[in-house]
Amino acid sequence: MSRMPTADAGDPPFLRACRGQPCDRVPVWFMRQAGRSLPEYRARRGSGSILDAIACPELAAELTLQPVHRYGVDAAILFSDIVVPLAAIGFGVEVVPGRGPVVAEPFRRPEDLERLRPLEPDLDVAYVAETVRLVAAETNVPVIGFAGAPFTLASYLVEGGPSRDHVRTKSLMRTDPVTWMALLDALADLSVASLRAQVAAGASAVQLFDSWVGTLSPDDYRQLVLPASRRIFTELGDLGVPRLHFGVGTGELLSLMAGAGAEVVGVDWRVPLDAARHRVGPGHAVQGNLDPVTCLAPWKVVAAETRRVLAQAGGRPGHVFNLGHGVLPQTDPDTLARVVDLVHEEGTAK
Amino acid sequence: MSRMPTADAGDPPFLRACRGQPCDRVPVWFMRQAGRSLPEYRARRGSGSILDAIACPELAAELTLQPVHRYGVDAAILFSDIVVPLAAIGFGVEVVPGRGPVVAEPFRRPEDLERLRPLEPDLDVAYVAETVRLVAAETNVPVIGFAGAPFTLASYLVEGGPSRDHVRTKSLMRTDPVTWMALLDALADLSVASLRAQVAAGASAVQLFDSWVGTLSPDDYRQLVLPASRRIFTELGDLGVPRLHFGVGTGELLSLMAGAGAEVVGVDWRVPLDAARHRVGPGHAVQGNLDPVTCLAPWKVVAAETRRVLAQAGGRPGHVFNLGHGVLPQTDPDTLARVVDLVHEEGTAK
Repeated sequence: MSRMPTADAGDPPFLRACRGQPCDRVPVWFMRQAGRSLPEYRARRGSGSILDAIACPELAAELTLQPVHRYGVDAAILFSDIVVPLAAIGFGVEVVPGRGPVVAEPFRRPEDLERLRPLEPDLDVAYVAETVRLVAAETNVPVIGFAGAPFTLASYLVEGGPSRDHVRTKSLMRTDPVTWMALLDALADLSVASLRAQVAAGASAVQLFDSWVGTLSPDDYRQLVLPASRRIFTELGDLGVPRLHFGVGTGELLSLMAGAGAEVVGVDWRVPLDAARHRVGPGHAVQGNLDPVTCLAPWKVVAAETRRVLAQAGGRPGHVFNLGHGVLPQTDPDTLARVVDLVHEEGTAK
Repeated sequence: MSRMPTADAGDPPFLRACRGQPCDRVPVWFMRQAGRSLPEYRARRGSGSILDAIACPELAAELTLQPVHRYGVDAAILFSDIVVPLAAIGFGVEVVPGRGPVVAEPFRRPEDLERLRPLEPDLDVAYVAETVRLVAAETNVPVIGFAGAPFTLASYLVEGGPSRDHVRTKSLMRTDPVTWMALLDALADLSVASLRAQVAAGASAVQLFDSWVGTLSPDDYRQLVLPASRRIFTELGDLGVPRLHFGVGTGELLSLMAGAGAEVVGVDWRVPLDAARHRVGPGHAVQGNLDPVTCLAPWKVVAAETRRVLAQAGGRPGHVFNLGHGVLPQTDPDTLARVVDLVHEEGTAK
């Protein structure tokens, strides 16, 4: 199974939880579950570019499935990167190990809009769809497709790489809102095209990562980011798959992000899930939110914190267990396996 | 004037605002107002170590007063650094330009507690008190003394420098809470001793910086940080000076931080001041919260955002205008001068 256009009592727990339906267990997956914390990943990946690995469907499918086999998680997140569409249309993006996405010629002027041509998924990123197909054929858990949200993608393009203060991004946003909104619209188009292609190939849900949007005030978000993110979710609405939306440090933005249209709002560890549920409102599920750093502690500590997350979720439907951000590379895989078992044993969603 | 043990209608606006009293204007100062954004600072400082400059009272006093003269701000914040007491007791801390505090031999084991001897202000940091005396004698605006809060100081000691994820800090906190609490208690003692000496020398208010505590969940903060921070404020209670408390990304912690005992809770730009006032409750003033990055935009944008902050503060007593974090080095001083004028002209606190 993988496509589930309508709700069905036989749906897997992950899809039921996304839709706020009761489940026989709390589903769990981990952001960055496929990656450097797994010895089998390091063995297979070697030292080549991550974008090259993503462009090889057999390898990417294998890396996607590694954590599914090892952990027994309830969903497979595609092994990919949010900058894949940007690299594919030739914007000039590399992913530098230990640093992140780096843009050789950053976006600085209105004329740079011309460098953002539309994505043609069949031509530009056919390997992504092929990876989704391979994964969906190999597993019976739902496959999550994903894309970067316009703000976070724009921040890489404008800054030229990861940034602490997002000085150039905020400056462009505030001094030339017309160019800014055009940039976000172009990036939204990329993400829509990429996500539609992933769903067409067999993804059962999609997550839009706005990892760094928590650097904005609610007013800035509402005026200068929300319209583009909302359009993405609107344009995916006909697909009938659950849509998830996540960023770090977004406590003040949760109700606005829920209003962007996703069924599920992801939450980092700073916001207790009971408070998060209140902010996103009754029409939305929440996803989260064990602190990834907790997973480096002895099991006794991890277990206590995992139980705290389950308790704060309230034992009610509409909770997808996850970390509050990606798995840290130094995490012991055995710890994550035990978290999965604990969530499956003790979580309730009735 | 500088010591104001009791409220008085003749008190300066900054002290009245801290106490929630009506003022004839909204007072304003800027975190890091003394520093690299000022050409007169760069001319005077040269390229030596900042800790050496801090240890020279005449120079430190001059650097403290530069922004008071240029901007007409309502308070002078001491030119110093939160690691000064740690360096003074010989823990081995340097401040590396462009990086921040670096600890040669980080805190890793319970035995490292022995490296934290009590601060004897008259012997260890006599230059700080002398700087306060020089500044207080030269200006009629209140002088703000400051110290680092236990969590943020501990994070530098444990990580060995600035950190994104605070992995080692959180690990120590969770795996050895006894050592952690002993560390925080020792750091609290340092801050109390340092702040009492600053007030004795003429500081009219004190700010406790817990810059990085926003990385914690409310539960972690309540159990593992709040007791030490609260003790600091309790032990300063007899001094009769306003106490301020600030951290970045602390939206979820504001009510707890208010409970630590400060009269004023500082807020970064992510939390609108009307929401912040609600969270800290009626017994506390708020300080903030213009995004420092906004100050790099054209004046029209800065003015609009400044007015937005004033509007969200509600025109009521109990607001100290500030940035939501420190002044960025690339800020044009003329912009800050105009912000001060605008706040003084348009802010109301009746």
